[in-house]
Amino acid sequence: MMRPYDELLLRFAEIRDLAAVQALAAWDQEVMMPPGGADARAHALAALAGTVHEKSTDPQLARLVERLWRGRARLSPLPRRQVELARRTVRKARRIPSDLARELALAESRGLETWREARRAKDWRRFAPALATMVRLKRRVAQLAVAADGAPRGSRAPHYDALLDDYEPGLTSATLDALLGELQDFTVPLLHRVVATRVRVDLSPFVGRFDVAAQRAFAREVVEAMGLDLTRGRLDLSTHPFCSGLSPGDVRMTGRFAPGDLRGGLFGVIHEAGHGLYEQGLDPARAREPAGGAVSTAVHESQSRLWENLVARSRPFWVHFLPRLKRHHPQLRGVGVGDVWRAANAVQPSFIRVEADELTYNLHIVLRTEIERDLIEGRQSVSDLPVRWNDGMARLLGLRPRNDAEGVLQDIHWAMGLFGYFPTYSLGNLAAAQFMEAARRDVRGLDHRIAQGNLRPLREWLRENVHRHDQLVPADRLVRRVTGRPLGVEAFARAQRAKVAELYGI
Amino acid sequence: MMRPYDELLLRFAEIRDLAAVQALAAWDQEVMMPPGGADARAHALAALAGTVHEKSTDPQLARLVERLWRGRARLSPLPRRQVELARRTVRKARRIPSDLARELALAESRGLETWREARRAKDWRRFAPALATMVRLKRRVAQLAVAADGAPRGSRAPHYDALLDDYEPGLTSATLDALLGELQDFTVPLLHRVVATRVRVDLSPFVGRFDVAAQRAFAREVVEAMGLDLTRGRLDLSTHPFCSGLSPGDVRMTGRFAPGDLRGGLFGVIHEAGHGLYEQGLDPARAREPAGGAVSTAVHESQSRLWENLVARSRPFWVHFLPRLKRHHPQLRGVGVGDVWRAANAVQPSFIRVEADELTYNLHIVLRTEIERDLIEGRQSVSDLPVRWNDGMARLLGLRPRNDAEGVLQDIHWAMGLFGYFPTYSLGNLAAAQFMEAARRDVRGLDHRIAQGNLRPLREWLRENVHRHDQLVPADRLVRRVTGRPLGVEAFARAQRAKVAELYGI
Repeated sequence: MMRPYDELLLRFAEIRDLAAVQALAAWDQEVMMPPGGADARAHALAALAGTVHEKSTDPQLARLVERLWRGRARLSPLPRRQVELARRTVRKARRIPSDLARELALAESRGLETWREARRAKDWRRFAPALATMVRLKRRVAQLAVAADGAPRGSRAPHYDALLDDYEPGLTSATLDALLGELQDFTVPLLHRVVATRVRVDLSPFVGRFDVAAQRAFAREVVEAMGLDLTRGRLDLSTHPFCSGLSPGDVRMTGRFAPGDLRGGLFGVIHEAGHGLYEQGLDPARAREPAGGAVSTAVHESQSRLWENLVARSRPFWVHFLPRLKRHHPQLRGVGVGDVWRAANAVQPSFIRVEADELTYNLHIVLRTEIERDLIEGRQSVSDLPVRWNDGMARLLGLRPRNDAEGVLQDIHWAMGLFGYFPTYSLGNLAAAQFMEAARRDVRGLDHRIAQGNLRPLREWLRENVHRHDQLVPADRLVRRVTGRPLGVEAFARAQRAKVAELYGI
Repeated sequence: MMRPYDELLLRFAEIRDLAAVQALAAWDQEVMMPPGGADARAHALAALAGTVHEKSTDPQLARLVERLWRGRARLSPLPRRQVELARRTVRKARRIPSDLARELALAESRGLETWREARRAKDWRRFAPALATMVRLKRRVAQLAVAADGAPRGSRAPHYDALLDDYEPGLTSATLDALLGELQDFTVPLLHRVVATRVRVDLSPFVGRFDVAAQRAFAREVVEAMGLDLTRGRLDLSTHPFCSGLSPGDVRMTGRFAPGDLRGGLFGVIHEAGHGLYEQGLDPARAREPAGGAVSTAVHESQSRLWENLVARSRPFWVHFLPRLKRHHPQLRGVGVGDVWRAANAVQPSFIRVEADELTYNLHIVLRTEIERDLIEGRQSVSDLPVRWNDGMARLLGLRPRNDAEGVLQDIHWAMGLFGYFPTYSLGNLAAAQFMEAARRDVRGLDHRIAQGNLRPLREWLRENVHRHDQLVPADRLVRRVTGRPLGVEAFARAQRAKVAELYGI
């Protein structure tokens, strides 16, 4: 007879192995699959999702988990945490009847396909019915969660709370509202002051004609300096850049390069490489256990944003890398570090989230968070979304989209049923700033080393303090332990104020 | 309530969907996976194999299949065939206890890894224990099959018969021995006469220095002329060329190009493209049904050998393609069609099966078939294999390997547990010759069209007569229906005799 705890680990490992195959099939779909494979892939992904759901909801596994949970007082901290996390997974899965799981998988593939067509055609009405279906299904998921576990006391968005928990375990909309509110209160007046200066930053270092092969070569040079190990990962091309960790030894990133603008390709790859370093830094021995894997979506995002914004948009970074960039693009001959730094940090309200600068980015998130919360709480109809979106853009960023492709249709998330995901981007921005301050505190001469092209001390600090802990400690406790404070707006605000002061003289 | 037949199709479709994911994971492992992903991939493949085995052995599915089988008299031909094929799959799977299935999956990954190391080190003793394990497990599989279904009447190799059936449904070693015996009786004296002429064919058109990118470009030109649709497939590089059909809309082939010799790259890709055309020609509507997919391994092989040997080594082919090859490799300027034809058809005993010419190839197969039959029947010990191998090479081909890497260690099959697979290569050669004669009978001026570079009539004939029938008719009946005769040696012998007569004047 196997000990119950060992049986739990064995069953969980199988679920993780199948989840790794799901990640592979999804990666392949975006990066390698020929167009003719789409139908069969949709079936394959549905079969895998069904199998993973079946195995996660197995009554024997559920009994096992509950039995271990009842005896948790006798477990030492690591097994106790493993049981807690396994139980969380099993309970979440068991709330979803298999019919609903299948409907969700189907709605995802259909939603994605419909969204792609609608965005291409800039035609909101083509997407609205698929989105309405998805909202209905996700509301059902949230209702089942609230029915099973209740809602946080006094919550004004109990169903949205339930979905948030999928990405940011333990996060409630009350905490989220406070953070995003503070962030908005800080950002909007600062943005008004920037706009009022009428300073137009010169973007020419990044805009022109740049050989794409040279862009790829330079991006590769940078991610290798970051310490990304390409014997334990890949870097490919895809329409929508992403990072997928099949295992800590097989982390796959993609980028997209445009001949007319250096920024999208370079900062995009560095962003994904930040995710990649996190995935490669996870403990391989724990990869198939309940406590293995990233601790939360916000912490994941903090790693990508830290490298993209706080390293690759910093002066020290360009002191080392500008001469190397010039080797790949000789036309940049006359450009100085200050020029590149300014171009990389220009503040400018814009329509598209993924192209937004560091400061305005969070306003895009505030808009999406408000809307998706109301959708899930049944306070916002799908049909009125474009109006709500465009009014929000006008209020927060002073811009009104000219069509829905640069408005409500721009993001993939809702089509895939990812409600509760958007706010983790802003939380990631806040955490990144807080981690960076802590790294500067702990690593002597950090910026000096970056200016020498030595990115290893920063990477090792992140690995030691964040990556290698997997899910041993919840995300909020991890942030407190590493930075000495709970997640807040201060570090981010300090960095933004300093930057804006220098760039715009305010 | 679902009708039982519909439930069968539904359950089978899920198994097929998961099998497609297995194919994807195996393809990725060879072609895309970074080295760091190996461990996790072994786990993932084992989990998938376990899941497919679980679903194929589900008692409810077994009851369903038997119930439909009992009522088969009331079914029309197509559903009856579907039930027959589904029952075959389920019964084969249910003979294997899940422990054994898991042991087999493990022995495969380990066997492969050990074989790779041993071959690199030319060290038989490193591989022998892994092979002994594999032989023990496959004998167990065969014993379970014989215990469940009995053996063909009077069979002298009942266990090997059981394994043959996995690749060539219904084939017995009695039939196989007769065919291979005839083939050997025809080949050996002819080969002796060729060798006795002491004619050395000039191989220089294919040997020298050839730009690898140009080789790839030309190979692509050829497979596109063959009608391979690369929006429904891919062509990549890998150490061991192969073709894997994830679905009729997603068929993935690989090649390997060497700068010193045109043959391996070009004929290898054409070979895989022959497999690929078969996979692309299967009926997509049937892909997830029991009767969907290739009818047998020999028929699959007939398609690759037909294109590789009977088309791409023919004079008409080079009439059209030699000028095109010269565009890619201008150093071939002075070479004529006859030169290329002779170089492509030279007969020369050699150590390595995959580099063997059309005539000697089958002797490599005769050797492997005798040995693996005796291994499975318990009449040959693993430890004595190198001696048996080298003696056989001396007897059949007049050569004695200088080390085991060019002898018993050269092939991947046994390491993966593929016993019963080798003979299908020779059966494929025979079937290819027989199909080609039938195509010449049916398609007026076939060679003339090939000489014009028009490969479409041949491809359409194959699609119409072979590909699109999936498994609706068993392989032996398909051959008889299309060619008017059961599978035999005559067509192959005719083609070989004619070729050798012209090339060696005998």
